[in-house]
Amino acid sequence: MKLSKIASILECEFSGDDIDIEGMNALKDATSSELSFVANAKYVKDIQDTKAAGVIVPESLVEYVPSGCVALVVENSYWSMAVLSKYFAPAIEDNTLPHAKIGEGSSVSDKAEIANGAVIGKNCTILAHVYIGANAVVGDNTILYPSVTVYRDCKIGADCIIHANTVIGADGFGFATNNLGEHKKIYQNGNVVIEDDVEIGSNVSVDRAVFGSTILKKGVRIDNLVQIAHNCEIGEYSVFVAQSGSAGSTKLGRNVVVGGQAAFAGHLEIAPFSNFAARSGITHNIKESGKTYGGFPLMEQRTWLKLQAKIARLLKK
Amino acid sequence: MKLSKIASILECEFSGDDIDIEGMNALKDATSSELSFVANAKYVKDIQDTKAAGVIVPESLVEYVPSGCVALVVENSYWSMAVLSKYFAPAIEDNTLPHAKIGEGSSVSDKAEIANGAVIGKNCTILAHVYIGANAVVGDNTILYPSVTVYRDCKIGADCIIHANTVIGADGFGFATNNLGEHKKIYQNGNVVIEDDVEIGSNVSVDRAVFGSTILKKGVRIDNLVQIAHNCEIGEYSVFVAQSGSAGSTKLGRNVVVGGQAAFAGHLEIAPFSNFAARSGITHNIKESGKTYGGFPLMEQRTWLKLQAKIARLLKK
Amino acid sequence: MKLSKIASILECEFSGDDIDIEGMNALKDATSSELSFVANAKYVKDIQDTKAAGVIVPESLVEYVPSGCVALVVENSYWSMAVLSKYFAPAIEDNTLPHAKIGEGSSVSDKAEIANGAVIGKNCTILAHVYIGANAVVGDNTILYPSVTVYRDCKIGADCIIHANTVIGADGFGFATNNLGEHKKIYQNGNVVIEDDVEIGSNVSVDRAVFGSTILKKGVRIDNLVQIAHNCEIGEYSVFVAQSGSAGSTKLGRNVVVGGQAAFAGHLEIAPFSNFAARSGITHNIKESGKTYGGFPLMEQRTWLKLQAKIARLLKK
Repeated sequence: MKLSKIASILECEFSGDDIDIEGMNALKDATSSELSFVANAKYVKDIQDTKAAGVIVPESLVEYVPSGCVALVVENSYWSMAVLSKYFAPAIEDNTLPHAKIGEGSSVSDKAEIANGAVIGKNCTILAHVYIGANAVVGDNTILYPSVTVYRDCKIGADCIIHANTVIGADGFGFATNNLGEHKKIYQNGNVVIEDDVEIGSNVSVDRAVFGSTILKKGVRIDNLVQIAHNCEIGEYSVFVAQSGSAGSTKLGRNVVVGGQAAFAGHLEIAPFSNFAARSGITHNIKESGKTYGGFPLMEQRTWLKLQAKIARLLKK
Repeated sequence: MKLSKIASILECEFSGDDIDIEGMNALKDATSSELSFVANAKYVKDIQDTKAAGVIVPESLVEYVPSGCVALVVENSYWSMAVLSKYFAPAIEDNTLPHAKIGEGSSVSDKAEIANGAVIGKNCTILAHVYIGANAVVGDNTILYPSVTVYRDCKIGADCIIHANTVIGADGFGFATNNLGEHKKIYQNGNVVIEDDVEIGSNVSVDRAVFGSTILKKGVRIDNLVQIAHNCEIGEYSVFVAQSGSAGSTKLGRNVVVGGQAAFAGHLEIAPFSNFAARSGITHNIKESGKTYGGFPLMEQRTWLKLQAKIARLLKK
Repeated sequence: MKLSKIASILECEFSGDDIDIEGMNALKDATSSELSFVANAKYVKDIQDTKAAGVIVPESLVEYVPSGCVALVVENSYWSMAVLSKYFAPAIEDNTLPHAKIGEGSSVSDKAEIANGAVIGKNCTILAHVYIGANAVVGDNTILYPSVTVYRDCKIGADCIIHANTVIGADGFGFATNNLGEHKKIYQNGNVVIEDDVEIGSNVSVDRAVFGSTILKKGVRIDNLVQIAHNCEIGEYSVFVAQSGSAGSTKLGRNVVVGGQAAFAGHLEIAPFSNFAARSGITHNIKESGKTYGGFPLMEQRTWLKLQAKIARLLKK
């Protein structure tokens, strides 16, 4: 989409070449054909370093936009980004794409729906009522149980098992809110990438990224009714027990174990081999590997146990 | 159904005209062609004021039934109401209803099931494995992702997005229990009403009302794996983050924000613009607007933070 | 499978007759044609008493294997059990089984998938997008709402109602982990047995047993988004409120009431008529009937209330 058209949609001006914008991305990841945005002064450093062709920016931050990067100055940059995101959202289905490719030896139920553009590997088992969206990819030997839904553009590796009624790649929970309290959807134009040898239980939600990918690395194990929000990255062989979850953009190292009903806040970094007891509430980064935590607020699990004993003594006072 | 037939089902007597009863409803909402019930002395005021044609009532409360309202006196009125509710439950599907109407420009997958009596607006996208029940209504431009289930009689507004495997209008969790500990289902003969511009994530459960409607007002945003129980009313632009929920009959004002894994007890009233931190447990009404709460038991979030610091000091004692 | 083949798969030796092994089972339940395993010295007693034909065992525990029971000595017996479990897993679907039997008066949507070998009783209602697996059994008058998935070999009783998008019999969450942190799936070759008059809400996950059965007894009531892990046994008329759950192998007596978001650890025994407040965290056995608990750590609910009052006083210090 031409910059001039974008400026017209956002009702703002711009100066510079009327170049073609291929998509939107985060400040850090945007390429010279992508547009980015900034809504918060704490990202000043990222503005200065961005490679983006242009950036949607409030008046107060325009001075940090590097030369060569077009500034689209708007009142509410987060809202404007939401408005624009819709224009970069691909169609849900696209019948101009080629028919789905099904690998040799794969069994696909005639009650499954495989959208045009999808590619399914060899020796897969795709059961009834599965939906695989446009351009989605499923690796060899993977089993999708009934009513699994894989949204468009998502990639599932080889030797995976996904249990019934799990949803891969629904939209992340993103919207801007104006000062009337109204919400504007931020279209989630990224995807989900699941590597090889991953098993996911039933009724799980793994959301697609707003930009880029939500990633489940090799060997991850996810139990039932788990929430993985947009842009999370789950390290190799990490384990989520039932009804646990993570808010957006949190990154786990390998072999992290997350107990039942435990949950991570967003935008955290968690060291490998960390263990979290059931119902832990994790709201800060974990830098040291190999420890076991519990409680909410979070503390080392042995401290939590000690603290509970101290608390119980209050009854005697 | 004639009162005489109802009396016969409930094995009780009645005096007065053998009028025709069209349905059951709460004491406050019942009309002169509906039957109601009372199981608890705390609703004495509601009995006295009811407009119901008749009321199922234990011997101990019969004196409060107003003249002109028929008293059906039974031993266990809650159980009797459950017994009777089945007789007012409509068939799950009804092939005598007219074929579903699909609005102009709508795309409906041939692997979706649209029951007779359903009405779908213009420019909707109904993907594979969606189920839309009898007499359900879907507004213009609404998108239902794969395996969304909409039970009969539910209404979804215009410009809504409902993500995969979400269930709208399953039965609320209602049953009577006798003194042997056995349960009797209370048929949930109400519906769900979702207004315009609502987005709901994947694997969400919004239950139908026992009587009347469970309501999600305009602009509501619901993340994945959320529970909305029967007869809740969720105010405009309110937000539920993943794995949160509400028990039955709780009413939220507009722009309430509910953090991840937070939950409301039933029968509460929550002031508009209230915020609840992740994992809040809300068990009482919130009367003042615009405050932020956390913890379980609930307190203001800043108090909760202060309290956690105090609790941590116990370790040093 | 011949013992010699098993020894070859596990790369170990064996002495004794090359008998035919029909399956795997727990030490306590294995018959003389089944193989078992032991990974932990705390099960020494169970090894000595086992009726199993053979047992996979580490060197350190071989001395406890009774005479007449073949010892298959391996380095990591839990991992070896996982490796072997795959060989005893039945095919997901089996077209050599006879066509499904549908009882008189049952209505089965032509958009449902009923696998070969399934048996459906009389007067059932099976809605669109339901999946019923090989050899699964559904009793008379049972209603399965859209997109319910019943995995192979599971049994559902008469007069049951299962709401949309619920999954019965997906694999329990079982895997062995080696010292590189890699996981090996333990195939879950048991099933789920649901007795008569059970109602289950939407988006519920009831996992199949690793060996034997996960059991929901007569009259159980389960709300939405609940997790029942492998090998649980839920007593008659017990109630799980929304978003609650139980880890594996926990056994509840009759009429236990589990509040919203409450959860049980695994391998517990819970006395009948126990009540658990919302968000209880139950990590130990409950031996005395009829009490009410709350909190995490768990305590009697009245104690929890008293304790919260004491904790609140810390704010004044």
